[in-house]
Order: sequence, then C-alpha cells, then structure tokens
Amino acid sequence: MLVYLNGDYVPRERALIPVDDRGFLFGDGIYEVTRVVRGRPFEAGRHARRLRRGVDGLRIDLPTGMEDELTAVAERLIAENGLGDGEATVYMQVTRGAVAPRTHQFPPAGTRPTVYVGAQRFAPPDAVRERGAAVVTYPDIRWGRCDLKTVNLLPNVLAKQAAVDAGAFEGVFVRDGTVTEGAQTTVFAVLDDTLLTHPLGERILPSVTREVVLELAAELGITTYEEAFTIDELRGAATEAFLASTTADVMPAVSVDGAPIGDGRPGAMTRTLGDALARRLGRGD
Amino acid sequence: MLVYLNGDYVPRERALIPVDDRGFLFGDGIYEVTRVVRGRPFEAGRHARRLRRGVDGLRIDLPTGMEDELTAVAERLIAENGLGDGEATVYMQVTRGAVAPRTHQFPPAGTRPTVYVGAQRFAPPDAVRERGAAVVTYPDIRWGRCDLKTVNLLPNVLAKQAAVDAGAFEGVFVRDGTVTEGAQTTVFAVLDDTLLTHPLGERILPSVTREVVLELAAELGITTYEEAFTIDELRGAATEAFLASTTADVMPAVSVDGAPIGDGRPGAMTRTLGDALARRLGRGD
Repeated sequence: MLVYLNGDYVPRERALIPVDDRGFLFGDGIYEVTRVVRGRPFEAGRHARRLRRGVDGLRIDLPTGMEDELTAVAERLIAENGLGDGEATVYMQVTRGAVAPRTHQFPPAGTRPTVYVGAQRFAPPDAVRERGAAVVTYPDIRWGRCDLKTVNLLPNVLAKQAAVDAGAFEGVFVRDGTVTEGAQTTVFAVLDDTLLTHPLGERILPSVTREVVLELAAELGITTYEEAFTIDELRGAATEAFLASTTADVMPAVSVDGAPIGDGRPGAMTRTLGDALARRLGRGD
Repeated sequence: MLVYLNGDYVPRERALIPVDDRGFLFGDGIYEVTRVVRGRPFEAGRHARRLRRGVDGLRIDLPTGMEDELTAVAERLIAENGLGDGEATVYMQVTRGAVAPRTHQFPPAGTRPTVYVGAQRFAPPDAVRERGAAVVTYPDIRWGRCDLKTVNLLPNVLAKQAAVDAGAFEGVFVRDGTVTEGAQTTVFAVLDDTLLTHPLGERILPSVTREVVLELAAELGITTYEEAFTIDELRGAATEAFLASTTADVMPAVSVDGAPIGDGRPGAMTRTLGDALARRLGRGD
C-alpha cells in the first residue's frame, strides 16, 4: 500500500516520522477523514476547506492551496492502490513539523509542516445500521476548541473505548446535562417530529456529514432546529435518534446506557435521511 | 546523540516511528521531563511513579516495573552521550503503540506501547531568573484531566506561544477567574506573607517541582496553603509570585499582562525558595 508523506509516495511500512515530530510530541496537528465511494472522494471540497480552517486556527503554516493539492494526492492514492471500486477512506494529517529541540512554543518560521495522506479499503457498518446502534454517555471533558479537528483526541479515544467496553457502538458526550456530540459522530434527535442537533460553535466539530444531513432534511421538508437537547430528552421524549459521520453515515441510535430510545428501533425519519444520504454518497440503489 | 526507542539504542536521526503510532494519530500517550544535574536525574523516583500513574490512568499496558527500568535507560543515555557533567534533561514518552487500521478505541490486547527516551544538554534560564519573568494570562480551555501528563498539549502550546508573542516567559491559565497553573509550570503567589498554590485535583498537574517546593517551604517554616487564588489577587494583593517546574526551577514572576506583580521585582520569599531548590538540585554554591 502506497501512502504520501511530505511530497513522496512511499510504501506504508516506509512512512516513518522522526520522534521530534510535533504530532507525536504535542498532538500539534489536524486531520481529515474523507469517504470514497467508487473512486470518488465525497465532499472533498468541504474537507479541504475544513482542513484549511484547522491549520489556520492553529497557525500551522501550510502553503496556500495545499489543501486542494491534497485532494489530488488522495485521488492518486485511490488509483495507485486499486481502491477505485467499492468503498474506501482517505486519511490526511498535517502537523506543525519536526524540529529539535522540543519547545512548547511554535518552531522557527519556515519549519515545514508534516503532511501525511493514506488511503484504505473501508467496510461500512451496515449490519449495525440494520438493527440500530447502542450508545453510552461519557462526560464531555474535552477542551474548549472542539470545533478544530485536531489530533488531541484522548477524550474521544476514552469515550469510544468506554462504548466498546459496554458493547456499544459510540460514546456520546454530555456536558452540563446537554448532549454535545459523539466521540466520532454528530448526534441528532427527533422530538415532537422535529429534528434537533447541537448548534455549531466551540463545543462541537463542524461535521461535513452533519452539514449534508441538514441539507437533506431541508430538501425533504423536515423541520429542523440547530438547538441542543438534553440527555434527559434523549432518554425520554425523543422518538428517534441517530448518529452521523463520514464513516457511520446515518446510523440509528436505538439505546442509550442500556435504555431504549423511542421504541428501541430505527425510526422512520432516520431511515428516510439514511436513504437520502446513501443516494448522495452514490451508495444507493 | 544516542536515544532509546522500543528497546534499542539508536542515533537520534534513526529514531523513527510509523505514521500509525497512536502518539502521532491521537496524542495517545504520556511523557515526563526529568532534570539532570552533574549526571544525576533529579527525583527520578517521583517521575517514574507519575509516569506509572499516567499510563495506568490512560490504561496503556506498560509492563510492570518498566517505569523504573526507564530510569536506568536515562542514566545510560546520560553516560553514553557525555552528559555526566553540567546540566541536562531527559525526555520520556510512552504511547499506546502503533497499529493499523486506525481506530479510536484501544488496539488489541498485547499491542506493544511505544517507548522513547532522549537526553539532551540543558541551559537553565538563569538570566531571566535574575530580573524575573513576565507572564501573560490565557483562558484555561484545557480538558478535564489536567492531572495526567499527556501529550495532548495543544492548549499548552497555544498558551506558551501567546506568551512568546507578547515577549513574555510563560502563559498562565485562568479558569473562571482562578489561576490554575502555567502552560509548563506551577504558579505560586504570596499573599499576606502566606504562600498559595492551586490544590491538586483534575485541574492541574501533580508537578514534581511543586511537591519539592512545598517540602522546602515547610522546612523553612513558610506558612503555605494549597488553595487557589484569583487573577485579581495575582494582579492586586499578591506581593510576590513565582513559577516552578523541572526546567524553570523557581522562577520569579514579576509582571502579568504587562502590569507589575508586587513591586515588580523578584521577592524575598521567592529568592529564599529558589536558593533552597538550587541546593536540592545540587546547583547551589
């Protein structure tokens, strides 16, 4: 498998970074995961724009336009690795570069960021989707800039592992009684036939799939509010809930901490939106 | 320069890690920095215990006793790199290992953690100490487990850079009006001839130097409370303040956001504690 590292295409096992890389030492970088269906990166432009927003937000000095060149890199990796049919994902990461000695402050101007891109085969979790996913709650102990897609991912790792430990699919962050988002997903709930999801801001990631789902909901005439809901509402009044992400697509959430959401089965609005997203992805029939 | 990586002693430029390392992808690891004076790692036992507490806290499967073996590794690096005289530091990092495919949840049991140790020459910031350090405040936007010394260090990087941008030495985190700690240091203030510092808990790192300074203060008969103080107190009533860390030692803080602390000069209690720490370090005369 060929990957891209700092301008070179190399076999994955030769993609090595110095221990001085600020990604390794500080988690000082951002990343993107893009879905690829039949060779086509889904919403590549939005991912590229978010990547740019991320490096700018962290003041990582990535050359102008590089975010678009990375889409071309991704396309080459898809082709050269024989991933042009079926499903795949592309992973991109940009860090503030490798430089010694280690200092918390930024390295000298002109330090070249580390840029890594890999592509791999992907099997969507369609079996889980069929019956619906269990989620568990986890305290939202993340930092104050959840809107940046950084590799400071420890709370997400711990929340996801808590889910796996409980035999669940996803860990859902709760802050002050409010559902913010999942460890890897956006959370949507249906209350009074209305679709709700946490508003943008520093508490959640501006998810590409979230944006697409909101567009699809508007096209379908579904009343939607970007408004937070509480964990009590998710446990109680919600008739449906689902997760959304680049790899989970629209994933029905049918239980939270072991208690059913709604009637404990994937809901009708969830199915409708899931089908619409599958069509947008080119996965539909 | 020789470093240690996963059991091998290799030249620094050959210390390379796979892009799949969870340190690089998630900041999924912990680290320690130990001071070395004339070949002797300072408080190596306490650093080893904190490293163990860190890996256990993150459920990284580091073999029992490995934290003590790493002290021996550090001593060998000090000797082999000719760092047995003068000043040096040792950097240790343990991550949850390198494994593909990338998943947020923990990798399979038996995945070997990545262990990296490096040693380098160190020049203490004695010139800054002489006149005292300027600090700037920065919102404490860190996550909820600041007691773990993880490599999820982005807020610390940003706070330190804000200090450097302002021509200051350190960024000091403020949460809800309270001074928690610095980007790389513990913060102490003197109010009414009493020494104050933020209590332990999930909001600050259990700093080794903090612990040593508290011991020295007790020996010197200084009245001390592990009690938080506000940024208003630091700007107003505080007659002295200082930072403490493995590399800053006791560092007088003489201004905050451009305004003097006390009379704007290193204070007497700060000097006394600084001299006592220098003696403990073996740096004293």
